Parts: sequence; structure tokens; C-alpha cells
Amino acid sequence: MAKAPDFPTRLLRGYAAFRDQRLPLESSRYKVLAEAGQRPRTMIVGCCDSRAAPETIFDAAPGELFVIRNVANLVPPYDPDGEYHGTSAAIEFGVMGLKVRNIVVMGHGRCGGVQAYIASRNAPSDSADLSPGDFIGKWISLIAPAEALVCDDPAETADAQRALEFASVRKAIENLRTFPTIRSLEEIDEIELHGAWFDISTGELYVLDQATGRFSVAATPIG
Amino acid sequence: MAKAPDFPTRLLRGYAAFRDQRLPLESSRYKVLAEAGQRPRTMIVGCCDSRAAPETIFDAAPGELFVIRNVANLVPPYDPDGEYHGTSAAIEFGVMGLKVRNIVVMGHGRCGGVQAYIASRNAPSDSADLSPGDFIGKWISLIAPAEALVCDDPAETADAQRALEFASVRKAIENLRTFPTIRSLEEIDEIELHGAWFDISTGELYVLDQATGRFSVAATPIG
Amino acid sequence: MAKAPDFPTRLLRGYAAFRDQRLPLESSRYKVLAEAGQRPRTMIVGCCDSRAAPETIFDAAPGELFVIRNVANLVPPYDPDGEYHGTSAAIEFGVMGLKVRNIVVMGHGRCGGVQAYIASRNAPSDSADLSPGDFIGKWISLIAPAEALVCDDPAETADAQRALEFASVRKAIENLRTFPTIRSLEEIDEIELHGAWFDISTGELYVLDQATGRFSVAATPIG
Amino acid sequence: MAKAPDFPTRLLRGYAAFRDQRLPLESSRYKVLAEAGQRPRTMIVGCCDSRAAPETIFDAAPGELFVIRNVANLVPPYDPDGEYHGTSAAIEFGVMGLKVRNIVVMGHGRCGGVQAYIASRNAPSDSADLSPGDFIGKWISLIAPAEALVCDDPAETADAQRALEFASVRKAIENLRTFPTIRSLEEIDEIELHGAWFDISTGELYVLDQATGRFSVAATPIG
Repeated sequence: MAKAPDFPTRLLRGYAAFRDQRLPLESSRYKVLAEAGQRPRTMIVGCCDSRAAPETIFDAAPGELFVIRNVANLVPPYDPDGEYHGTSAAIEFGVMGLKVRNIVVMGHGRCGGVQAYIASRNAPSDSADLSPGDFIGKWISLIAPAEALVCDDPAETADAQRALEFASVRKAIENLRTFPTIRSLEEIDEIELHGAWFDISTGELYVLDQATGRFSVAATPIG
Repeated sequence: MAKAPDFPTRLLRGYAAFRDQRLPLESSRYKVLAEAGQRPRTMIVGCCDSRAAPETIFDAAPGELFVIRNVANLVPPYDPDGEYHGTSAAIEFGVMGLKVRNIVVMGHGRCGGVQAYIASRNAPSDSADLSPGDFIGKWISLIAPAEALVCDDPAETADAQRALEFASVRKAIENLRTFPTIRSLEEIDEIELHGAWFDISTGELYVLDQATGRFSVAATPIG
Repeated sequence: MAKAPDFPTRLLRGYAAFRDQRLPLESSRYKVLAEAGQRPRTMIVGCCDSRAAPETIFDAAPGELFVIRNVANLVPPYDPDGEYHGTSAAIEFGVMGLKVRNIVVMGHGRCGGVQAYIASRNAPSDSADLSPGDFIGKWISLIAPAEALVCDDPAETADAQRALEFASVRKAIENLRTFPTIRSLEEIDEIELHGAWFDISTGELYVLDQATGRFSVAATPIG
Repeated sequence: MAKAPDFPTRLLRGYAAFRDQRLPLESSRYKVLAEAGQRPRTMIVGCCDSRAAPETIFDAAPGELFVIRNVANLVPPYDPDGEYHGTSAAIEFGVMGLKVRNIVVMGHGRCGGVQAYIASRNAPSDSADLSPGDFIGKWISLIAPAEALVCDDPAETADAQRALEFASVRKAIENLRTFPTIRSLEEIDEIELHGAWFDISTGELYVLDQATGRFSVAATPIG
């Protein structure tokens, strides 16, 4: 039977700080975007990880980023089988309903989902921390096809987990292209797909060069 | 065929602002939580909506909030059928892997997912904006059982969409309690479930009183 | 730089409950055993696990149990090399200083230390949750020699982790016998060694029959 | 050669009392925390002394306290030299694996370990009760650096052993801060360190005010 605990004080204090400091600066954005509807240009597919918040990393204002967050920032391949596909539904909502211009798949370092996948791959019969659950093992099995996209550059494979985090971003972008609408929109230059990876240890942002397939530290725009 | 577009300049500028202004203040948090692992106390189930970013609304530091975001902040009922359940997997990861203490389902005003559900319910044969897609219609059908939880208070039902947004938060909390581990942990006071709703027009935060089932504007903590 | 946080409220409340309810019943024991010194008859080597507190499981009064708790209730073999051996020092203190009559090694189900050992054995190169630390990997490597004591009874090996938990208790008792003083005292019937295993799920206590090497549910004493 | 003595009757009776009286009240906690894993918020570093059981003193439920117990509740300084460090391994397990929020070092009055240290210091060539052992003398030599932290307040130094017991708690907290992960987590307010001292004669609990470095009787929380 459920009790009725108080709302967490830490969150109430955080909200009070937002209300007193940031809200006054953004109140017209909130008001206008409430009336006119949201118009984000960018969709982010990010991870639930508490250290990788897209709005923080991109210093985003209210209304800028439409954000999907699941474990390990995965995009399943297009598979309209009538089941409940939360990520695919959100992608569809952003692309068709909100008409976003960019989709950024953003991975990050020390991802617990990728780590759990590696652990389960290395010891499939093992009672790893996360494997006994009902859902997480199945979900992270979506990472498996990304193994084929691990780069053979020694500089990249030296860190096996990071190499797979990179590869998983590449695979998610491939999977976005299995959505017919996205593939078609990309062909006529109406939508752009991007990959990024955030180093939660140093705060560095890496971006994917799709011509070469390589990640490198983001250059700062001039001016 | 994929081109290689430049990474969006707006995001690079935003990242540069983060890197130059906020990162220096948080660099030790990032570094420590990279080494020691994340330790969030709170999981948020929020909406992808660009105007309802949990880290912004709760003024959260890196590492504080484990955040799931899907369209309309839905929690499907527990259903371990071997399919890919992104939201359920993320809930499991947060509860069992990260041992979060609180789960907050946060709805918000003018939710496009709830709006699409109402449109499809009112005009089932209609070709509403979002219905022709392959996934979104199925996903938002998860809202239907929430209708039974709409409150009959005239003050609440005066705004039919908001009333359903409130009800959907109540239903998501009910569905969280269909996860055996969560229900069990709640019974022994090891986890708390909460509901909230953010008014994107005014910036007001409402919290759910589970004893009465009513939402009201959050009181500010003292001190 | 250290702040000066308040002492955790939960602990202060727990202490107040002890002081108001149990202390009055035990105050003479505390007072006498403070003056006369402690005289425990039993030493427990238990695990740090929060679900396996010896005083709780054995309903012990103050002064009854001298308790060593380390990860996975391990006893290293006798090795007087001049290093800091916390467990061996405590064993020595109990046997020689306090003259305990019994030593009970108490394992328990779902032991995180045994689980981590199994994970590291199955995937030695893996970045398992606990392996990157500086100490835990080395400590749990003390479990390895217990593998030779896993029983070949199918009823026992069906649960591989529990089988190793049992075997580790057997090994800890073997290691206690590598301490010359303990071995000598046991030979003249001045000290007894015992093994037990607590099922944290059901609350059942298993005891080791050293004649057969098997664990079975503890029989209740009559009268 | 090992005999097969019966399991001590006193322990079986104590277990029967636990099983018949307390287990029914806590069976859901045991069951849930077996399935979901332990989630203790607090780690206690306590002494093996039979009169200073943390679960008793803090009236703790199963799953609340992760408890390390060694002679004199010592924390060695961080020293990752590849040896078997049971206490350091347990600290690491609690901080990194279980993500505990508080670490409490709890000393107590009339500590046999501190007493033995004082005896060996005062009469180094003496054959004190405990000195001839192979391990205890070395272990309690870890107390020596605490002498520099004895307070010069006459009220405190009047009881020389208690003064050193207090100082040893202070030193253990200092040593916890030599663990890089703990120091870092404390700096970002993700972990709290506390000191306490239990008077086994009267049952009074003292807590350390780290701002002043002084111990005083714990105030009871209100409400």
C-alpha cells in the first residue's frame, strides 16, 4: 500500500532556484512557446545517464532541443510491428510532427549500458549485476550489431569500451536511416543526422565526421 | 546516401558556452563521478518536449538526475514478454543498478502526445497530423487507461487536456507499481514515487499529493 | 576540505529508540561488562552485508558475540609476515585475548563479494563494476582456493553461487586450522569451529555438518 | 583433526527467537532486498567488541547498515600495494559498489585494542597479554599516529584511554580522506564522513563535531 511521502526537498530547492533565477530570464520564451507550440530544430537521442544531460552540455534554452533519453542512447532499427516502440515513436513525433532539422545521437564515456553489454557478452552465463532483470538484458542486446562498426584504428581500439560507444553511435545513425521518412528527408537535404560523444570525465565533446567515420574533439565555432 | 554535413553551429556555440562557463564550475563533479560512477538519488520519467527539461526545471547538477524521456512521459505496465522495452529497461537500470531513492513522473502542460491522443480519440477516422505514422499512434494509445483516473473536480476538468495530463501522471505511477521490484521496495520504504506537472506557460511546478490524488502548486521549502 | 555535516538523522532516531527501549532492559549487562570486561563465548566471522547482521540473526545480547565482518566473510590462511592483517589480528585477539569457545564462519546468500569473484573469474579482462578498484579484486581473489571445495552433489551445484558460498565457508574453516594456536586448542577440545550460511531471502539458517561436509537447515533445539 | 561438534545450542536458541519473533516482522524486507539487492545508505566502521554492535545501538533494520568490524575500528591509510587489505576492500565495496552516502567511524569505551596499544607503548618490552601474538601487535600499531590527535582539553585528557579512543576516530576519518575516491566524493558533497563513540558502560552515544573536533553526547532529533 502506497504512503504519501513528501516531494523530495532537494528537488523543491532546485525548482525554487530555477523559478527565482532562470525563469525570469526565460519567461517570455516559455510563454510564447506555450502559445505557439514548440519548434525545436534539433532532436537529441541521448542516454539516461545523470552525467550526460543534453540541455546542460549544449547550454540550451527552453524549446531548443527535443530530447529522447534511453539506456545507452540506442535507436532500434525500423520495425513497424504494432508493438509499443517508445524510441521509434518519439523519433517519428520529432521528425513528422515537429519537423526537426537535425538529429544528433549523443553517446558518452563510461556508459553503464555499454559496460553491461560487454560484461554480458564476456560472461553470458554469468549473474552480472544487471542481467537478472526482466528488461535490461534484452534492451542492451541492441548494441550487438554495433560491434561490426568498431573501428580498427589502434588509437581507438585501445579503449575497448569507448570504441564500442563510438560504434554504437555509428550504428544508431545507420538505424535512423532505416526509417523510410528519415532516409528520404536526408536525401533531399531536409534533415541532417549527426553523431557526438561526450567525455563525462573531462567535459570534452567529440563529433563524428561521417565522411571518414572518425570521432574527434569538436572545433569551436569562430565568432 | 549519407553526406557529411557540419555539426550544427548552434550546438557548437552552446557547447562552447558550457565549456567556458559551466564546465569550470562543475569539472570536479564530472571528474569524480566519472571515476566513482554515477550515484543519482532521483529518476525522472519526463517528456521529450523541448520546453520541459528536468535538469533545467530542477536546476540539477551533473550526476543528480537519471532521466528517461519519451513522448508524454509514459510508463507502460510491467510486461516481461521478451520484447525491447526501452522505458522499462531504463526503469530497471535505475532502480536495481543505480539504487535510486525517488522516482518522479513529470508531466507538463500542452503536451503534444496527450493532445494527439485526444485528437485520435475524438476523431478516430481522422487523418490527424501524427496518426499516419507507424509508431506514435500505438505509443500514445498507452494513455487510454488514464482516462479512468481523470478527477471529477470541476476546477480540474475545466481544462480537459490538463485533466488528462494529470490523470496520465497518476496512471504512470500506478504502472510503476506493477513492477514487482518497485512495489516491493516501496512497501519497505526503500523507494518513493512522486508525481509532478510543469506548466510550460508560467513556469509553475505542481506536485501530486498521493493521499488526496490532487495536484497543487509546489510549496517552496524553507531555509 | 571537510565540511561539518550533521550526524545522519536516521541514525540519531535509531539510537533514540535503542536508548529508550532496549537500553533499559540491558543496562545492567552493559554496566557489568564494562567493569568486568567482555567475555564473549563466540566469535563470528561474518560478511559486511547489510542483510546479514549476526546480532540480529542470533538475537544476541550485548557481550555475547565478538564479531569480525569483512567482505565475503573470508579468513586468510595464517601468514605472519609482518604486514597489517586485520582479520588475522581480530581472530588472534578473540582466541588468545578473549578466550572464545566457538568460532562460527557465517556466509550468506547473494553475497556481493562471491558474485564479484565469479564475474571476475568468468571475464578476467572485463571492466566489471567492482574490479577497477584498488583493493576489492585482490581481496576476493582469496575466494579462489575455495573452488576446490565445491561439493559435487547436484542438489548443491544447481545454484553455482550458493555452492561457492558454501565452499568458501568450508575453506575459511580450513584456514582457521592453519593458525597453530587454533589447531592446537581444537585438538584438546578447547575450541570449536563451525560453519553456517544464512539465506537472506527466506531467513533460514543452514549449518555445516563437518562429518559429512554438508549444509542443512538448522534444527531447532528442544526446550 | 577436526571433530564434528554440534552447533552451539545458545546460537540455535537465539536463531529460533529471531525466526519466531523478528523474522515475521521483517520477512518482506529480507525477501525484497534479496531480490533487488542491498541498498544501505550508511557504512559503519566499528569494533569487533561484543558490547558495541552497530545494529543494536542504531536499532537498524535489515539492509540499513553495511558494517565493517575490526579490532579498534581502525582505517588504515590508503596504500594500494597489492596486498590483502580487508578493511580497505570493504570500504571500496561500500563506496563504489553500493554507493553509500555516509560513513560513520564508531569507537567505544574500554576498547581492548586501544588498551593493548597503550600497554605495549608503556611497556614495550613487556610480555603483555596480547603482545606475543603474530598479528595483533602489528595491527594496533596503526593506532600510533592517532596520538598526535589527542585533544589537550583537560576534560578530555583526564581519561587517557578515552582520549585516545576519541583521537583514533579522528585519525580514522583522516585516513578515510586519504582514499582518493572518498576525498573526491566528499568534496562534491556526495558522501559524508562522521565520527561517533559509544559508552559501553552507560549506553550513551557521543558524536564528533568536525568543525570543533570535539565529541559530545548526541542530541535526540525532534519529531
